[in-house]
Amino acid sequence: MSSERLIYLPLGGAGEIGMNAYVYGYGKPNAERLIVVDMGVAFPDMDGSPGVDLILPDITWLQERRDRIEAVFVTHAHEDHVGAVAHTYERLGAPIYARAFTANIARRKMAEHGHPEDAVHTVSPWPETVSAGPFQVSFLPISHSIPESSAMVIDTPEGRVIHSGDFKLDETPLVGEAFDPELWAEVSKDGVKALICDSTNVFSQHPGRSEASVGPEITKLVQSAQGMVVATTFASNVARVKTLADAGVRAGRSIVLMGRAMRRMIEASAETGVLQDFPSVVSPEEAKSIPRENLMLLVTGSQGERRAASAQLARGKYQGMEMKEGDLFLFSSKTIPGNEKGVIRIINAFSELGVDVVDDSSGLYHVSGHANRPDLERLSEIVNPQVVIPMHGEHRHLREHVKIAEQNGRTGVLAVNGMMVDLSGNKPKIAEYVETGRTYLDGTVQIGALDGVVRDRIRMALNGHVVVTLIVDEDDEPLGDPWCELKGLPETGRSKASLVDVLEADLGQWLGRADPKTMRDDDRLNEGLRRVVRQTSQDEIGKKPEVSVIVSRLS
Amino acid sequence: MSSERLIYLPLGGAGEIGMNAYVYGYGKPNAERLIVVDMGVAFPDMDGSPGVDLILPDITWLQERRDRIEAVFVTHAHEDHVGAVAHTYERLGAPIYARAFTANIARRKMAEHGHPEDAVHTVSPWPETVSAGPFQVSFLPISHSIPESSAMVIDTPEGRVIHSGDFKLDETPLVGEAFDPELWAEVSKDGVKALICDSTNVFSQHPGRSEASVGPEITKLVQSAQGMVVATTFASNVARVKTLADAGVRAGRSIVLMGRAMRRMIEASAETGVLQDFPSVVSPEEAKSIPRENLMLLVTGSQGERRAASAQLARGKYQGMEMKEGDLFLFSSKTIPGNEKGVIRIINAFSELGVDVVDDSSGLYHVSGHANRPDLERLSEIVNPQVVIPMHGEHRHLREHVKIAEQNGRTGVLAVNGMMVDLSGNKPKIAEYVETGRTYLDGTVQIGALDGVVRDRIRMALNGHVVVTLIVDEDDEPLGDPWCELKGLPETGRSKASLVDVLEADLGQWLGRADPKTMRDDDRLNEGLRRVVRQTSQDEIGKKPEVSVIVSRLS
Repeated sequence: MSSERLIYLPLGGAGEIGMNAYVYGYGKPNAERLIVVDMGVAFPDMDGSPGVDLILPDITWLQERRDRIEAVFVTHAHEDHVGAVAHTYERLGAPIYARAFTANIARRKMAEHGHPEDAVHTVSPWPETVSAGPFQVSFLPISHSIPESSAMVIDTPEGRVIHSGDFKLDETPLVGEAFDPELWAEVSKDGVKALICDSTNVFSQHPGRSEASVGPEITKLVQSAQGMVVATTFASNVARVKTLADAGVRAGRSIVLMGRAMRRMIEASAETGVLQDFPSVVSPEEAKSIPRENLMLLVTGSQGERRAASAQLARGKYQGMEMKEGDLFLFSSKTIPGNEKGVIRIINAFSELGVDVVDDSSGLYHVSGHANRPDLERLSEIVNPQVVIPMHGEHRHLREHVKIAEQNGRTGVLAVNGMMVDLSGNKPKIAEYVETGRTYLDGTVQIGALDGVVRDRIRMALNGHVVVTLIVDEDDEPLGDPWCELKGLPETGRSKASLVDVLEADLGQWLGRADPKTMRDDDRLNEGLRRVVRQTSQDEIGKKPEVSVIVSRLS
Repeated sequence: MSSERLIYLPLGGAGEIGMNAYVYGYGKPNAERLIVVDMGVAFPDMDGSPGVDLILPDITWLQERRDRIEAVFVTHAHEDHVGAVAHTYERLGAPIYARAFTANIARRKMAEHGHPEDAVHTVSPWPETVSAGPFQVSFLPISHSIPESSAMVIDTPEGRVIHSGDFKLDETPLVGEAFDPELWAEVSKDGVKALICDSTNVFSQHPGRSEASVGPEITKLVQSAQGMVVATTFASNVARVKTLADAGVRAGRSIVLMGRAMRRMIEASAETGVLQDFPSVVSPEEAKSIPRENLMLLVTGSQGERRAASAQLARGKYQGMEMKEGDLFLFSSKTIPGNEKGVIRIINAFSELGVDVVDDSSGLYHVSGHANRPDLERLSEIVNPQVVIPMHGEHRHLREHVKIAEQNGRTGVLAVNGMMVDLSGNKPKIAEYVETGRTYLDGTVQIGALDGVVRDRIRMALNGHVVVTLIVDEDDEPLGDPWCELKGLPETGRSKASLVDVLEADLGQWLGRADPKTMRDDDRLNEGLRRVVRQTSQDEIGKKPEVSVIVSRLS
């Protein structure tokens, strides 16, 4: 029992898309030295997390073992992998390692939060190695929709483990390193204990397409456009931004970058040398003197975000630019599930302006950054691991990925967030179940997803809110009538009388009949008043509001 | 100016998908006799209409002209066409006409609301005609994903107008009438003034597929399944429900119908004779004694609705039935944009149970009920109208449909909700802009979408709610300290002290400095207290809550 073990523990990303956070450990049980791979965020929505700014993994488990954490490694600079590094830095207190581009983005985040930028260390790709306690860790380049995405090669006393990060198998990615099957074979040749592998596109049956395939189509589209062309994609998809810009230049257009993320990503790419021949751009100010048929705007907001450049252009002017009848808007992106309504809102707003919108429904103007089923199988074949552990996916993705591994004669392990896998020896096993969850960044405060704060907000959104105020005098008698404040409720209901009047009358009646025992007991009084409000509301308006009761005692 | 005119006015459905409500009128301007085609609902969501039960068209314009309404015609029994008939019946006070199946559903709604069922009149299909003031109206059968869907043939003194309703061109629809091109040509042969036409699928480039195409594929799938099979589709898609049931029977399975809508639709189909050879079904009770590999459940909830049968099965038992490893769940349906998250939640819950889920991503197990672009062009060719007015679609759909009409040499008119089109004479023109909107059914109360009730709920959901209570004595001095009630806000912020304590302290300080003028003036007092709460909250928790201030004066 006291021998050392190698563990894998997902705290986020296994059972969901987004919020990636994985832990590896080696040592005696409950004394393992730990490393963390990725510390990402998820994005809130009105359905489940209204008003929340960001969703972070619950790192309580790590925080309680803070003295055992050697390092945090970040595979790439997407928000769902790097977004929480600054928010969790103080609680983890561990150095952060990443390749140059990712480190550049991570340092910007650290600076914004007043944390030391030099906590982020830049690492060169394989074969450079970082020693982190019992682990030797390297960044093995792999293609993805952002520069310098890397798999982590983690050498442990139990053997080599490869954590794929997000990836696709692109041998012509235009920006950044191509997938190099020979390098991967070389790294894997002495045996790989486990491949912990991206699963998001496991249901896509065809081999993924290369970034290089979209350039010619985008060029054709832009060349045939008559008016101004505006295109959006994820700003971090630097290769795509370049493809779009190159297409614009080929069509004799000046390029304008709009939106903070767009400028920041191109800046980071230039600073770190991953992007060397980006066309020169003009400012929105300069663009005003250029005929619109000679302009191409590259803008943020491919997911319909309300404050991004594309949404602002759809609503009217943005930085002096305005779309008009005959212009073209291109979504060189796919809509992430949940964002459909925002994207459709923008398309309709453009439609009202007479702007033609082209999206990725033709499949010509966007390719995914993730490995499809045949690509996953190909990587497994090259790496030939003893065990495949699917990560980054909902339960259905992980389950399907395990099935594929098993169909190909490998051992697959389905481990969702909180399931600690013991990888020691010959047979992986679930060692422990760890409590995991989500932490909400709400304004400047971090709150637990289950603290009830957001639950109360959702209830007020669904049911409205009634506040009952009652003053009780020294003799435990009501001082005057109780009064109600309503928010988010109709003014009148069935009886056509003001709802607040009906409520106050019924509350008054109930108080008139309340016995002294009730009047002395805050809990009873609260409960009684609450019940009157809910019952009367049900009669009047057919719904039961949230109720807060404030009893103020003069005694 | 006083000559008679023929008008078309969409009040819902033109500029959105759902909530169909169209008005036709004939007579002297502002004295036209009116008919209404369809009176449907839209469905609320957490983003824009939290807590709302249903969204109805704002019928104020019609209500103000109530004495001029001859009749309401309902093209088919989908909720977005029939759903508001009972909710608006009292305000419109007009008789309702529909074919037998649609009338059956409409009468159930009337009965549920205590309205007279005999206000709903059953009409036989073309050539039967209803006289409605200056209009002669017939129901011309057309195929769709529900029985007895019909176009309205509206004969007016200005000529014949055809309102397509929702449709597809299916010559083998399995249940109900096939699309009959010869009948449509016959009806159109003497000239059609205007075709008001469904637009939802205008961006789909391929001809629509027949309902008959899915049966063989579903049969193959069910026959190859090992465990229990559960399938969901829209209950109103009676043809599909029958296809699923037939496939189950062919595979030697007993059929169980689960979910209220499923049973109600099959019942209505049987009562009205549209469905004559539905296989016999067993009850969930009887099903318990049948081996699971001999069962096929047809269940409601294809859109992931939380309370429907499929969601309940995903969470555990439903009516004694339970899904297990090795069972199969089939979505014979497409997910409507906005419902993705609910559907995905169910798929993942089934994945956790070890249930295999098949959806329509292969295109084998579902076909759309709407006409694609080539079908729209074909119908226009058959009808050969002078004018095409696209309806039922978002702005982008209507605009694209107008483009197609114009490419084919026709006059297209883009009219969104509130745009009254004058169809008299040779050139259609926009005659008036009418204010339109949405009415929310909230519990049992109808409220205007812009009344602010729902806006307040959304704000509470995003920002939380603080209620400040202050008692002011006869001398305009605070009686004791103000106190705060918080809901949907974190307990502590930056200073680590209780947020409510910090707020109350700051409010107390502010009151201590307030001059007598402020203390006498409710508006100033409210505004001052509100500002303190918002400022202190911003400092403490980084967000500004909604604030309600209750000042109670003893004077």
